[in-house]
Amino acid sequence: MLTCNNFVFHSPTKIIFGAKTISQLKNEIPQKAKILMIYGSGSIKKNGVYDQVKEALKEHNVMEFSGITPNPRYETAIKAVEICKKENIDFLLAVGGGSVIDATKFISIASKYPGKDPWDIMPHKNNQLKNLFQPTEAIPIGTVLTIPATGSEMNTGYVITRESTKEKVGRIDQLVIPKFSILDPETSYSLPKRQIINGIVDSFVHVTEQYLTTFRNTKISDRFAEGVIDTLISEAPVVLKNPKDYSARANIMWASTMALNRLIGCGVDFDGATHSIGHEITAMNDSDHAKTLAAVIKGVLIYKKQQKMKKLVLMAERIYGKKEGTDEEKADFAISETIKFFNSIGMKTTLSSVGIKKENFQEIADRIEERTKTMGFGLGEHRDIYKDDVLKILELCDP
Amino acid sequence: MLTCNNFVFHSPTKIIFGAKTISQLKNEIPQKAKILMIYGSGSIKKNGVYDQVKEALKEHNVMEFSGITPNPRYETAIKAVEICKKENIDFLLAVGGGSVIDATKFISIASKYPGKDPWDIMPHKNNQLKNLFQPTEAIPIGTVLTIPATGSEMNTGYVITRESTKEKVGRIDQLVIPKFSILDPETSYSLPKRQIINGIVDSFVHVTEQYLTTFRNTKISDRFAEGVIDTLISEAPVVLKNPKDYSARANIMWASTMALNRLIGCGVDFDGATHSIGHEITAMNDSDHAKTLAAVIKGVLIYKKQQKMKKLVLMAERIYGKKEGTDEEKADFAISETIKFFNSIGMKTTLSSVGIKKENFQEIADRIEERTKTMGFGLGEHRDIYKDDVLKILELCDP
Repeated sequence: MLTCNNFVFHSPTKIIFGAKTISQLKNEIPQKAKILMIYGSGSIKKNGVYDQVKEALKEHNVMEFSGITPNPRYETAIKAVEICKKENIDFLLAVGGGSVIDATKFISIASKYPGKDPWDIMPHKNNQLKNLFQPTEAIPIGTVLTIPATGSEMNTGYVITRESTKEKVGRIDQLVIPKFSILDPETSYSLPKRQIINGIVDSFVHVTEQYLTTFRNTKISDRFAEGVIDTLISEAPVVLKNPKDYSARANIMWASTMALNRLIGCGVDFDGATHSIGHEITAMNDSDHAKTLAAVIKGVLIYKKQQKMKKLVLMAERIYGKKEGTDEEKADFAISETIKFFNSIGMKTTLSSVGIKKENFQEIADRIEERTKTMGFGLGEHRDIYKDDVLKILELCDP
Repeated sequence: MLTCNNFVFHSPTKIIFGAKTISQLKNEIPQKAKILMIYGSGSIKKNGVYDQVKEALKEHNVMEFSGITPNPRYETAIKAVEICKKENIDFLLAVGGGSVIDATKFISIASKYPGKDPWDIMPHKNNQLKNLFQPTEAIPIGTVLTIPATGSEMNTGYVITRESTKEKVGRIDQLVIPKFSILDPETSYSLPKRQIINGIVDSFVHVTEQYLTTFRNTKISDRFAEGVIDTLISEAPVVLKNPKDYSARANIMWASTMALNRLIGCGVDFDGATHSIGHEITAMNDSDHAKTLAAVIKGVLIYKKQQKMKKLVLMAERIYGKKEGTDEEKADFAISETIKFFNSIGMKTTLSSVGIKKENFQEIADRIEERTKTMGFGLGEHRDIYKDDVLKILELCDP
């Protein structure tokens, strides 16, 4: 029987969790720091978060940079890099969701990048993964999270989109893991329904990309993954019905952090195929990230069902309560119940819902071919998903 | 309904997990460091761990200090403090179980302690908790764990026994959390059965002291706690039958770290009553720590059953599969099944098994009175367990 992979787990972010905790910001950033506060389109000015941050930092030296969009753009981030250099910024405070935090991570590295073109920090079509720049310096980051979804508040990853080349690419750096993240569930009270649903689906797929992999008898990672999924399933209808249910908000916020701080990945393989294919769709037409995952996951799971069988069976038994039937039936049940759950909270799971028709399949496959060339290997936990496999996966998705 | 407590979670220890990982030591300690390697009675020389450590650090500057015992003694640790000062040690490497790691944490703080008597670092009968010294300096620590049990490899706590005054006392310091911990499940292959069983019970009680508290709808902490318990219950018979089952060893080792790195404590109350009463018994007669927990837990859970009802019911339903019956019946079932599990792996659960008879009850209660005076509050999650309550708890334990 396979056993757990050796692993390194290093998650030094200090989490400050709970209602009214934004005021603690002042103790977490050195008094003398020159801070750049980075945020998005300004929703934090409507829900009170901006005022709480400014109040907490009223004796600090704070500059601001706003305008980070969903699928954060290289073209925007690079403007903040100029400010960091010019103003000798020595602390970055991201206030927002995963897009703001991801952009901040890029800005952190790019501000100290010694090369000519900061785009070369990312793995892109002319920049192979194996030759990737390894940073030794970065501006320290703290975050105030307002959207539970990406896990970026407690991990090393960031994904950046370049508008001009229509590329959406990601990388990881231990250097950019936030020093602290403040998670006040009340900040999520005012989220639009669409973002709540997107966040739940994104978190859910983060879990399945670690949990639904080769069975390695990793009892802690498996049970924890099931705990995160179970929490998302039970709390989603609660927050959708009552946006100010503190318990449910807190449970979803903590679940989404746990979904991708790599804890549930300890000892197991990682299958990023759903995310990779989803990223290409977003790069093509700016679809919501989570919607692309919901549109693609079914195809990936069916295509890889035999390799994921044992875990799909576990999921069917433990999450969806199916104790009877063959392994095949249980695996099919796990997949169909997952789709059913997404639909039940108002998430569509069809390719057409993210603007993809049959005639677009080839472009997606061609894009994946570019990506696999950049990476030097295929998608998925076995690194064996290439262009032709992607075409087959897309055929297995709902049209 | 109660909601989750605000919390801070900060667990920066880098975990390096897996077979043959001790060789990675060399990359984790600065080349120029003057290292004091601290270990116990020498079992690491028999099972190969000592050789692996020395080989990994052959180009480092390493001194050694051995002789740390179970329930590590102040009188021993203080000798290592002298060495640290005299030799300007700037890195401490603990190689062993929780006792070695706890002693190392004390040595780390004591070596930089500006006061006269390092015993005053600890809360003791002449040193109230509220007046406790708050260190600002400590020697950095790394660990090579060989006994899964205490969780000390990834937490801030340490417990020290002073032989001369028969006191066993603990404290926490963020400063002493290990920089890294190497967890190679193979190091536990050669553990005597008694230590395997002790470790499983200690870990189990770490979980129940967080999980079996006031219900606060903390879904992640609850599910994770259940995952740890479930892992201990399912893997214990496997390792007892086949000591070289890598998967089971790995699962138990990771479970015991998760049991007390405070992750499952996020948002919930903490009830250390079983540990506190157990510590007094060990201080009196040097009983194995875990055996005292097994002897005392039943009394604590019965005495606090009404306050812990909702969690005991959850435990009965989710861990022990009891779906029928009243809450009272389920709670009783959770307690009796826990005792049954301990017995099934060869752990006795009577006071007499740790040398305690009825005539000793008063001494234990008097000791707890001293402790509650030092702390400034009672034991347990509600801080309401005092001397008289302890007498009642002991009456509820099996004689």
